[in-house]
Amino acid sequence: MNIPRSNNPRVVIIGGGFGGISLAQKLRKQEVQVVLLDKNNYHTFQPLLYQVSTGGLEPDSIAYPLRKVLIGYDNFFFRLAEVTEILPNKQLLKTTIGEISYDYLVVATGSETNFFGNTELEQHAMAMKSIPQSLNLRSLILENFEQALLTDEYHERDALMNFVIVGGGPTGVELAGALAEIKKGILPKDYPDLDTRRAQINLVQGGDRLLDAMSEKASEKAEKFLEDLGVQVWKNVRVTGYDGKTVRTKTDLVFETATLIWAAGVKGATIKGLDAKELIAGGNRLSVNEFNQVIGFPNIFAIGDIACMQTEEAPRGHPMMAQPAIQQGRKLGENLIRLINGKPLEPFIYKDKGSMATVGRNKAVCDLKNIRFQGVFAWFVWMFVHLFFLIGFRNRVVVFVNWVYNYIRFDREARLIIRPFKRNYDQFRD
Amino acid sequence: MNIPRSNNPRVVIIGGGFGGISLAQKLRKQEVQVVLLDKNNYHTFQPLLYQVSTGGLEPDSIAYPLRKVLIGYDNFFFRLAEVTEILPNKQLLKTTIGEISYDYLVVATGSETNFFGNTELEQHAMAMKSIPQSLNLRSLILENFEQALLTDEYHERDALMNFVIVGGGPTGVELAGALAEIKKGILPKDYPDLDTRRAQINLVQGGDRLLDAMSEKASEKAEKFLEDLGVQVWKNVRVTGYDGKTVRTKTDLVFETATLIWAAGVKGATIKGLDAKELIAGGNRLSVNEFNQVIGFPNIFAIGDIACMQTEEAPRGHPMMAQPAIQQGRKLGENLIRLINGKPLEPFIYKDKGSMATVGRNKAVCDLKNIRFQGVFAWFVWMFVHLFFLIGFRNRVVVFVNWVYNYIRFDREARLIIRPFKRNYDQFRD
Repeated sequence: MNIPRSNNPRVVIIGGGFGGISLAQKLRKQEVQVVLLDKNNYHTFQPLLYQVSTGGLEPDSIAYPLRKVLIGYDNFFFRLAEVTEILPNKQLLKTTIGEISYDYLVVATGSETNFFGNTELEQHAMAMKSIPQSLNLRSLILENFEQALLTDEYHERDALMNFVIVGGGPTGVELAGALAEIKKGILPKDYPDLDTRRAQINLVQGGDRLLDAMSEKASEKAEKFLEDLGVQVWKNVRVTGYDGKTVRTKTDLVFETATLIWAAGVKGATIKGLDAKELIAGGNRLSVNEFNQVIGFPNIFAIGDIACMQTEEAPRGHPMMAQPAIQQGRKLGENLIRLINGKPLEPFIYKDKGSMATVGRNKAVCDLKNIRFQGVFAWFVWMFVHLFFLIGFRNRVVVFVNWVYNYIRFDREARLIIRPFKRNYDQFRD
Repeated sequence: MNIPRSNNPRVVIIGGGFGGISLAQKLRKQEVQVVLLDKNNYHTFQPLLYQVSTGGLEPDSIAYPLRKVLIGYDNFFFRLAEVTEILPNKQLLKTTIGEISYDYLVVATGSETNFFGNTELEQHAMAMKSIPQSLNLRSLILENFEQALLTDEYHERDALMNFVIVGGGPTGVELAGALAEIKKGILPKDYPDLDTRRAQINLVQGGDRLLDAMSEKASEKAEKFLEDLGVQVWKNVRVTGYDGKTVRTKTDLVFETATLIWAAGVKGATIKGLDAKELIAGGNRLSVNEFNQVIGFPNIFAIGDIACMQTEEAPRGHPMMAQPAIQQGRKLGENLIRLINGKPLEPFIYKDKGSMATVGRNKAVCDLKNIRFQGVFAWFVWMFVHLFFLIGFRNRVVVFVNWVYNYIRFDREARLIIRPFKRNYDQFRD
């Protein structure tokens, strides 16, 4: 069943992330037909994926049905589809559900884990960019401890209880902090017959400080928080490979571990047909002008992580996080209406609202525009901001209930292996 | 790592359902060593699985970590393992994690879906006895509607929007009611470009009334509630086969559908080594005496769905539901202590607390001991009882929040395809 053509121009948005949703909301009640495509039927609140992995939240609480975003909008269509190719000359998309034409195209595909071409790492490391990936990691963490109970070989047991996180950005820092809290608060009670003091959380950062997009004070404090929690922080160490058992680095340092989590980089999720070398800027992102227009294609736009808008303030493009995506989505919504009405476009100006990361209970770091702070207050601000940007009233309430419960009880009840990850542990038996 | 032997006798419980958990709780602070085995690391609250399938609840809210049940108990061990064989002569279990010996064995394995040997049905029908199965069904229901948007062939579209539920027990009735509410409240908003009035919910019952374990009044009322909601109820119809496209019955009736849900029977989940013909009573259950002892094995017991205790009041054994399991678990806990202390065992006496089923908002039926009622009050009682028996304070709060939200907003926000079921739709293209 083809999507019926209306008299209004058709805007096709690829991707229901922060950018795609903000744009769709701006196009409500405008004289356009909107087609939103996504390979999932839900929006993912990526900043909280690490809490799903560590049993603190239920997966459904950080997902939101995309159809519900569009409920009650006229001339809006959602299709569950993956775009396999863009044919800009024909104004046509090839997708898993057939061809879809467009008048205006907005690429909002976000980013994917970047293994920098290391296929060995890609094969053995765990990524954490989607809900299924986060659930796989949750299962693996729990399976490792169950497996650790079964061996008498203490090297093997240590490797099963050793977690190596590569990448000292917010994802790595937040995941390391959560694992450290599990080690402290849950493992000794859940596994009285296991010496869980031997569990290790190693956070490996290539550069010389954690959270290198934030202030030095934030980096410093985050590292201190992590060390207080018992996380081993390794700086200036580059991981070069992992065969599923041994992590190799550029230095003498090696780790024996059943679990390597790769949070060391993302890259734009480009699509065939719009991936020519001259279109791509740093981070595999689509080069866009100040109107989010893909250079050379007046009716194709890119927003969010996939877009690289190089400006004076942001010579390497904006940070790949929620805020630029939301702001670009909104601005592009206004600009598309202007374009359709023959009015001149307005340039996008990024309003930096700051950034923050949480390490554990009462421990967070915030860099806001004019003020930087760390500790308990930062932690409350972090929670408030995340609840605010989480989509859906029910999600907010359920996440809030879980946070209150986890805080009061020092607990994380979603430590469930709903679908086993089924790692092959044979290689630890030699 | 073997489980260390203590001076106390070892009780091995296979299965962390209602029976296994109630028993374990009774053995707390007693002079026994308890080993609980389960193939999952969580307890499943089976009565609410249909709400997970229909997007009303998150899976993690009706699961509870089994290790947490045992927290703080001395001499308690949990192992994530499936028992593959029981060797009663050696007092030994073969499991997926090696051999485990026992002094007393309690089989609390519950029940599994009974396809009555029909392999064609088993291959193509959806079952709903576990959380992964319920999530698969959730994904399939949603995928069907996304698929229905893609076809111009109206026969195919009707088959994709046709849901056939076989079995008029509580599971079938509750699922049919939930699907009918989705059809009414959610589909028209979520799929404005699809004629969802053509969606059908067919409930097929082999006998001559629904809920045949309840009172006639309850059956009557449940049927009326379902018909008010637009469910088509078929009685005295036996389903004989389903090839993934066409449901065949003993009558002329056929259904073209992409989704057959089989809720027409369960059977005891027996284990090799304790499955000899003479041990088995009706429903593939282990025949037990009034002390839940498996006939002929003084140190092997069975409780819950897997146990068939034939008494005067219950000549075919107790109903396969939560209450008998909970009560038998508690009684056996007391009896095991008596047995170990050389005291005589006390017979189990079932205290029937009644049964209930819900059809939809404000619509439920309750048969309590001395009183039978239907409608709004029954619905509140149903909710209260289910919240009460749900394990875990956090689960109760989260489920309650979801129910309040769903009630006020006529909504079910967990309509998420987290892991696609990936049904093959090709056979509808001919």
